[in-house]
Amino acid sequence: MPTEASGAPGRRRPLTRRALLGAAGFGAAAGGGALVAATVRESPAAPSGGARATVPFHGPQQAGILHPRQTHAHLAAFDFGARTDRGRAAALLLRWSTAAQRLTRGEPVGEEISPPGSRAADTGVALGAGPASLTLTFGFGASFFDRVGLAAARPEALAPLPAFPDDRLDPARGDGDLFVQIAADDPLVCLHALRTVQRLAHGEAKTRWVMSGFTTAPVPGRTAPTHRNLMGQLDGTANPSPADAAARDRILVTAPGAPPWLAGGSYVVVRRIRMLLDHWDTLPQEHREQALGRRAADGSPLTGGGEHTAPDLTANRPDGVPVIAHNAHIRLAAPGANGGATMLRRGWSYYDGLRADGTPDAGMLFVAWQSDPRTGFVPVQQRLARGDALGRYLVHEASSLFVVPGGVRPGGYVAQALLEI
Amino acid sequence: MPTEASGAPGRRRPLTRRALLGAAGFGAAAGGGALVAATVRESPAAPSGGARATVPFHGPQQAGILHPRQTHAHLAAFDFGARTDRGRAAALLLRWSTAAQRLTRGEPVGEEISPPGSRAADTGVALGAGPASLTLTFGFGASFFDRVGLAAARPEALAPLPAFPDDRLDPARGDGDLFVQIAADDPLVCLHALRTVQRLAHGEAKTRWVMSGFTTAPVPGRTAPTHRNLMGQLDGTANPSPADAAARDRILVTAPGAPPWLAGGSYVVVRRIRMLLDHWDTLPQEHREQALGRRAADGSPLTGGGEHTAPDLTANRPDGVPVIAHNAHIRLAAPGANGGATMLRRGWSYYDGLRADGTPDAGMLFVAWQSDPRTGFVPVQQRLARGDALGRYLVHEASSLFVVPGGVRPGGYVAQALLEI
Ligand code: HEM
Ligand code: HEM
Repeated sequence: MPTEASGAPGRRRPLTRRALLGAAGFGAAAGGGALVAATVRESPAAPSGGARATVPFHGPQQAGILHPRQTHAHLAAFDFGARTDRGRAAALLLRWSTAAQRLTRGEPVGEEISPPGSRAADTGVALGAGPASLTLTFGFGASFFDRVGLAAARPEALAPLPAFPDDRLDPARGDGDLFVQIAADDPLVCLHALRTVQRLAHGEAKTRWVMSGFTTAPVPGRTAPTHRNLMGQLDGTANPSPADAAARDRILVTAPGAPPWLAGGSYVVVRRIRMLLDHWDTLPQEHREQALGRRAADGSPLTGGGEHTAPDLTANRPDGVPVIAHNAHIRLAAPGANGGATMLRRGWSYYDGLRADGTPDAGMLFVAWQSDPRTGFVPVQQRLARGDALGRYLVHEASSLFVVPGGVRPGGYVAQALLEI
Repeated sequence: MPTEASGAPGRRRPLTRRALLGAAGFGAAAGGGALVAATVRESPAAPSGGARATVPFHGPQQAGILHPRQTHAHLAAFDFGARTDRGRAAALLLRWSTAAQRLTRGEPVGEEISPPGSRAADTGVALGAGPASLTLTFGFGASFFDRVGLAAARPEALAPLPAFPDDRLDPARGDGDLFVQIAADDPLVCLHALRTVQRLAHGEAKTRWVMSGFTTAPVPGRTAPTHRNLMGQLDGTANPSPADAAARDRILVTAPGAPPWLAGGSYVVVRRIRMLLDHWDTLPQEHREQALGRRAADGSPLTGGGEHTAPDLTANRPDGVPVIAHNAHIRLAAPGANGGATMLRRGWSYYDGLRADGTPDAGMLFVAWQSDPRTGFVPVQQRLARGDALGRYLVHEASSLFVVPGGVRPGGYVAQALLEI
């Protein structure tokens, strides 16, 4: 199964594990074959399990998509260096996949997978603290496919997102060749994993940007997948349930025609959305609730019921004005006539201290998963950009789109089926 | 007991709770008298208690000093505006104390203590998440005493710290009129408390700086008060135990001659110390351990034993070289001939992403408590500055010294005995 790399002249070599890692001591079996049909041990209703809880790295999907949000996350993008080719990219992904497997089990990463020329070691920062439900999820930007000489394999759905009115994007904090989402219930475990991923990229890829976020700490026994965001709203209510097969088809790439490396994969939109909190916090509660279309206290729609009662978008007040306003966030964001949830929103809050003007540098690291951004994120954001009442208190500061390959089988690595073509 | 404020001409008014809060609906009893001799319900050996755990705000000391470190912290300093006087400062401290009492119980703060002219409300960001062992600890910089017309009451021990060689301090991130340490086991609870403190300062004091840190998440049943820092070291081993009365005398102001507002108080040194981690991580483990004088794996001294075995600073290797090097951090930092721990180090790690040069903006928010910085922090830092082997991998970027008044009795507020003189 291992084949030749189509790298620069003179650099052709077989993509065996041993060759990829360039190390004699690395003896795990170089397995091949189909994806292992692992059962998903992740459920949005599972209460958090503390320091010793693990989320398996291997499975039909990458971890960190369907599992409930952990408390802490680092999102990071990397750009390849000048010498990258397909073989070197495969070697990096094998190092990362091997480390991810070990880190998510709470095992030491081991020096034998250090990249050639790297002198940095694991200083044991998170020793005894993990794995704390650590997940690592890897993706590729559009530029990845050019850099590794696989432009023809770039999926059409990875076309750049359209420009949206009012976007104020910093290109230095968006996109990148490679993406990793690192999340755990312990902030030290989470940072240690980020530092490890950076260390293993030595000589191959440089960190382009990092963003760090959090949500509320797990409460043993609490099963609700909704969390409060920094506007004080319950966030995640209308998310599709990963247990619902039809909804999963909109989160994961399940179409029979998908290339094998993408089967079970997803597309992730990552946006840094700053909230104008000093302004938001001065609004009357009624105004805040109307901008969203739900009540702050319990997340119930303004048309009544509990958090999970469906909003009645047709209900009018006696004076004929809609109860859920024309420009309410949930009306504009709702999937509409074609029905069904269009993406899985699984973001984190961020707080990066004070801006120069004294206002908080705070908001949401919006992370949305979908089987196709052209039917997922894009049409929703186009509707929101036309007048979402929440939008007045938001600034979209950075934006990225990545394709996330399917799950990794034991002994394999992320996107192996793509890179070993 | 309430007396007149020595404010600007025409602004004299009695410092009653009602007058201080300027609100009719605020009806809690205005208690007086001696400090309540509450037992300290905090112990460094207490395992963390999850979302519903509380640390009482009232007591002979302020909370957040003797209690084990929570997972998350925001440290912030505030500067008074132009119109501040003693009465207005007292009103701010009453608002803050009242909010701290409610927040640390997991109760809503209530709009009736909002400052005059403020339109911002509590949007319920942390509803249902806390109190998660929240503590708020308030202190004053040297400038505080000038700003409130109480220069004569400024303690001598609050004299500016001397300059240390190699300091690269940013004055904008050091000092300030007012200080607050906010810490909790939930990041959302912690940020909500910071935003509340900022909101209640409206019209009176502006945030000067904020720094945010973390440590490892609590593990139910784990009682060790030591945590790994970002250099991978177990940190806190030689800390005095708050249960030891002699050690407490070095942490808290217990001298009989202390002014009543300061009795049970402390002095806190806050330093932002960046770690040159990309360099540190390339050092051989032996070098890293010698720079500290302890083993990375278990924190035991290089002279043997376990984490809590006393280091033998006289032991030599067969070739006559000391086992714990002359410039090892723990040798230079050790209290020496006069014996006894000199301060309680209770800091947090920080990670603020990438610096412009691609290195991590990461290190330690060093927070050290002592009864007198002239015998606590200063002589130790003077010794460390002369050649601490760790120091080569550290940059001191900001520094502050604050006096922290004693505990608050129910119905009272921080430093009431000072401001009502
Ligand atoms: C910081 C910015 C944003 C905030 C604070 C926010 C907040 C919320 C909240 C509180 C809800 C209701 C509860 C729930 O169903 O989760 C919601 C719903 C939703 N939001 Fe957002 N949102 C933001 C940005 C976005 C963006 C950029 C998109 C996609 C383009 C989006 C898509 C949706 C969708 C699809 C729903 C569900 C609507 C429904 O079917 O009821 N949101 N959002
Ligand atoms: C980021 C900077 C620093 C790091 C990484 C660091 C790390 C450590 C470590 C790992 C220990 C041994 C374990 C322990 O007893 O906690 C220690 C001990 C100690 N450190 Fe530091 N430290 C730093 C800065 C400072 C500073 C600025 C001071 C005070 C000026 C200080 C004072 C002490 C003291 C008094 C001890 C105990 C020594 C003994 O009695 O054994 N440290 N430090």
